[in-house]
Amino acid sequence: MNIPRTIEWITHTETALIPGHIKLIDQTLLPETLEFIETYDIKEIWHAIKTLQVRGAPAIGIAAAMGIAIATQQENEESTDDIISVVDAAVAYLSTSRPTAVNLFWAMERMQKLAHNNSNLSAKELKIRLIKEAMLIRDEDAAMCRAIGEHGAALLKNGDTVLTHCNAGSLATAEFGTALAPIYVAQEQGKKISVYADETRPLLQGSRLTAWELMQAGIDVTLICDNMTAQVMKEGRIDAVMVGADRIAANRDAANKIGTYGVALLAKAHNIPFYVLAPSSTIDMATATGNDIPIEERASEEVTHGFGKSTAPDGVKVYAPAFDVTPAELITAIITENGIREG
Amino acid sequence: MNIPRTIEWITHTETALIPGHIKLIDQTLLPETLEFIETYDIKEIWHAIKTLQVRGAPAIGIAAAMGIAIATQQENEESTDDIISVVDAAVAYLSTSRPTAVNLFWAMERMQKLAHNNSNLSAKELKIRLIKEAMLIRDEDAAMCRAIGEHGAALLKNGDTVLTHCNAGSLATAEFGTALAPIYVAQEQGKKISVYADETRPLLQGSRLTAWELMQAGIDVTLICDNMTAQVMKEGRIDAVMVGADRIAANRDAANKIGTYGVALLAKAHNIPFYVLAPSSTIDMATATGNDIPIEERASEEVTHGFGKSTAPDGVKVYAPAFDVTPAELITAIITENGIREG
Repeated sequence: MNIPRTIEWITHTETALIPGHIKLIDQTLLPETLEFIETYDIKEIWHAIKTLQVRGAPAIGIAAAMGIAIATQQENEESTDDIISVVDAAVAYLSTSRPTAVNLFWAMERMQKLAHNNSNLSAKELKIRLIKEAMLIRDEDAAMCRAIGEHGAALLKNGDTVLTHCNAGSLATAEFGTALAPIYVAQEQGKKISVYADETRPLLQGSRLTAWELMQAGIDVTLICDNMTAQVMKEGRIDAVMVGADRIAANRDAANKIGTYGVALLAKAHNIPFYVLAPSSTIDMATATGNDIPIEERASEEVTHGFGKSTAPDGVKVYAPAFDVTPAELITAIITENGIREG
Repeated sequence: MNIPRTIEWITHTETALIPGHIKLIDQTLLPETLEFIETYDIKEIWHAIKTLQVRGAPAIGIAAAMGIAIATQQENEESTDDIISVVDAAVAYLSTSRPTAVNLFWAMERMQKLAHNNSNLSAKELKIRLIKEAMLIRDEDAAMCRAIGEHGAALLKNGDTVLTHCNAGSLATAEFGTALAPIYVAQEQGKKISVYADETRPLLQGSRLTAWELMQAGIDVTLICDNMTAQVMKEGRIDAVMVGADRIAANRDAANKIGTYGVALLAKAHNIPFYVLAPSSTIDMATATGNDIPIEERASEEVTHGFGKSTAPDGVKVYAPAFDVTPAELITAIITENGIREG
């Protein structure tokens, strides 16, 4: 199975981690072109995060960690303190790339702490230790996605068809993704699973990214417009819905890409199980219910000029909530790396 | 209130119907450009119907009737039989423009019968009679839309907000439309009505046409993507849903643009009334239930290349049902020119 690798550390010899460089898919060129950015330059990583060449909370965290590691490679300074200063500067610099991405800050803090806690190492040892930490962040994410996938795959039987919304797949993570992980794992297990992908207006992550990565992996995928979901369910084509989550409240209400709540209501009307798949870190016990999650609005141009040309009258008023909250009672089960928890 | 006139017969003097010509909006250029086609040529009417420069069942019927009338204007033949032959040829010719449009054939049959039943008239008298019939078809449609609008407006109170899907407005008819008619009538009555328009993928009739015509008429309209409907309803922004119908079965199941059924389910989940507005001729007693209505599929390119550029991977499988059926139990009331019939 050929699951695209969103971001990797490429070593130049078989035995040493350095020298090395970062290789990542430029997601803004998908699905027309699969092009990789190969870089030694933290400025290119800043730019990649800023312009969504890399996207998805886990993938952004990994990119930032690897970006910090690569910054220390470029320095000829021989003192450990100098390397720690480079790390601090890199953290400050990358913080400006996407200031609202929680996972970006989580990963950078981890790298920064590691640097400050290892001031006893030599400069070269610390550089290697930083790369190892970035790779560990990647590997932990891959293992977590696999665990989510293994729990989720137990819910799927041979021949099932899953509907998904947006992209919570390999492109958003180190490997396997969250919502798509059960599909990849089931495929590995020899089960035949088909997928319907909502195109997910306005930014079309479903058609541009989900359909693309599933086709790459040889999984049977059918693209539909968001407003076809109800009809597809009515025709009996869907056995389960699997989606990701941006944040899950203490009461298990789940915030995700706009449209998810509607899909949950339609799934309920057709008696189709609705599963939310996410790392346990997505569950935010400090948020009591979905009502406490603010709904960010996106720019109207994403709706009116989403395809490089205007598709709406000049000056039309637009309402474009970026995500919505699916109440706990519509969620059949939440699946994390720790297992399946039913509602 | 400036409601765009989709199609009109333009006379050249105040007193005589001939000479005259046809003026229609080129809907393929909307919403970027409001451009009119002014023509004396039936070939341009054929082309307008074929290429969707004019669309919507009533508007197509009116265009065909006026097209037949204009064909007879261009003839210098002085015999009435010659004019009848021109009508017969015009009908045969326009039949090839959009062979599945039922209203096209209905309007042409009416014009053809009129010609054959009036062979006692002079050639000039018959020419005038044909124009009058085409204008009558237009006026009857306008009156029917107004009647639908008056019945529907009684369901709306000052300050209400209506959600609509696709375009069943003035652009599809002679005037006022069906689903949008209550909004125009309520506006005339001095009620302030706001509208949310689903963009309606894949062909975006909501953003291209509905938003445009409502803005032209000075009605407060907000554009949303189809997958935002549930969230907009949850936020309490919608008081009623009003949509058109392509066909209504004897048991009152209603076929309409893809996505309508999903909107009906979401309306029910939020306790919002869901109204279907259509001419009584849309009710087809020969169709027992919605299950007897075949669901046509559209070309996959409309989904993957809908905006002049590819938005999905090459070769991706697409499922694109053109419309869906809303079961009667989800319809609060059907509104025709004859009144409101609740479920």
